Amino acid sequence: MNEEKRTKILKKMNDVLPRGRWTIFNAMSYTPRAGGKNLRAMLMLEVADDLGVEGILDAAVAVELFHSGTLIHDDMPEIDDATLRRGKKANHLVFGSGMALLAGDGLFFLAFKLMSKYENLFPIFSDVAYDVLVGEAMDVELEDRKDFSENDIYEMYEKKTGALFGFSLSAPAVVVGLKNWKEFERMGRKFGIAFQIYDDIKDFTMSSESVGKDVGKDVNKKTLVKILGFEKAKEVADGIVEDIFNFLRSEKLENAESFLRGSLDLIKRG
Amino acid sequence: MNEEKRTKILKKMNDVLPRGRWTIFNAMSYTPRAGGKNLRAMLMLEVADDLGVEGILDAAVAVELFHSGTLIHDDMPEIDDATLRRGKKANHLVFGSGMALLAGDGLFFLAFKLMSKYENLFPIFSDVAYDVLVGEAMDVELEDRKDFSENDIYEMYEKKTGALFGFSLSAPAVVVGLKNWKEFERMGRKFGIAFQIYDDIKDFTMSSESVGKDVGKDVNKKTLVKILGFEKAKEVADGIVEDIFNFLRSEKLENAESFLRGSLDLIKRG
Repeated sequence: MNEEKRTKILKKMNDVLPRGRWTIFNAMSYTPRAGGKNLRAMLMLEVADDLGVEGILDAAVAVELFHSGTLIHDDMPEIDDATLRRGKKANHLVFGSGMALLAGDGLFFLAFKLMSKYENLFPIFSDVAYDVLVGEAMDVELEDRKDFSENDIYEMYEKKTGALFGFSLSAPAVVVGLKNWKEFERMGRKFGIAFQIYDDIKDFTMSSESVGKDVGKDVNKKTLVKILGFEKAKEVADGIVEDIFNFLRSEKLENAESFLRGSLDLIKRG
Repeated sequence: MNEEKRTKILKKMNDVLPRGRWTIFNAMSYTPRAGGKNLRAMLMLEVADDLGVEGILDAAVAVELFHSGTLIHDDMPEIDDATLRRGKKANHLVFGSGMALLAGDGLFFLAFKLMSKYENLFPIFSDVAYDVLVGEAMDVELEDRKDFSENDIYEMYEKKTGALFGFSLSAPAVVVGLKNWKEFERMGRKFGIAFQIYDDIKDFTMSSESVGKDVGKDVNKKTLVKILGFEKAKEVADGIVEDIFNFLRSEKLENAESFLRGSLDLIKRG
């Protein structure tokens, strides 16, 4: 991991997170500061380095704030009812469900505020945010649904987890005006699918303590691991990852490649 | 009320609201279609007429979708625990709390998607969305708070209710490049404060059935009516409204003036 980039991200995050005498500001700051890996922001900065793009730090932090907002809402009692996140108490257990709901909303809007500086990114990010939400809603609905296909799971993974990685990988390409930025986006989305598969595998093989969030309680969640079996699902994820590394090499994205290699180890280990 | 504009808004809303085999799409469509007055969108279109601005319908609908998203979240059990909205069952009582939470998020992101066409508006709208959220969070926190001032209530009203009206009134001025658009915004925000005061007065004097939402159950809510008393609060609201009409006349915003006169009657009657 590149500690210099990580420090930049955490400093900027600290600068933009709100302070004041209202609880909402503490609730909004709690989850982004709870010590996540900031993979999405890091990936964007690594690609930016590869492409010689500067001034993208606000967009990278916006992605992390948005992601934290989705985690807060996912963890709420009416959705995943999670107790742990990033090794700490879930937001709603610290601030109450009402304030946590609003803290998630607040992080979304703060992300859009930051993103609004980037005229070329804002419309794409709006689409991405909507995709993430639809993916999350599909995940929730699939729990109780009998009529679904393997493709539904892929679509759910691509939207819920892939859309933000697609944005992180492609945003520097958009800013620098690369014509094939959609290829970058597509690869990022595929990475999200592989990420989700490895995460599912981990949920079934590790303890909550080592992962830092609740595991093994999503008994009704529909996952590719359940549908394809452990071996086949891992094969799919490994295949996707190989495609991505081929792409990164062909585009000479060396920083991104090295970063994603390290990240995959982290993701698999938890 | 201008029925032609209303029809345009409802048609565009119908066009942009999602359809499909996932429940989230129904949950997102339910509240915007439940028959609100669409005051914010109507106001924007009236001002646009006054200023000769075209092509602002998507922005007007975006404001309504965003507003519906905030209503869904406000009505949730952990916030207002409301049962009625726009004369129908609240969203979470139809689709469940988890899906309602996500439907609110989905309406926010759909609003940003629509707004992202307007390069000059989306940075302002991002700020406005954030203000609305902070206002809502202040409202929630004030319920249990002993140390607060009259100014806190004004700020809460201005953000929670005023920010969107400020946006509606000023967006056409921004699009047409008026240098004093912030004056338009300020007047819209003041209108929101008056709106909230009249709404509080109504909550204390009318039945749920005639208003179409739960009333009188917000016993701990901090309102200007409670702090200033009915007479004084009404005086404040009437004074604000007079300022606004003076402004609208000085700017020759005749459609907006006539629309707001009619709206005030509606707001006071429920």
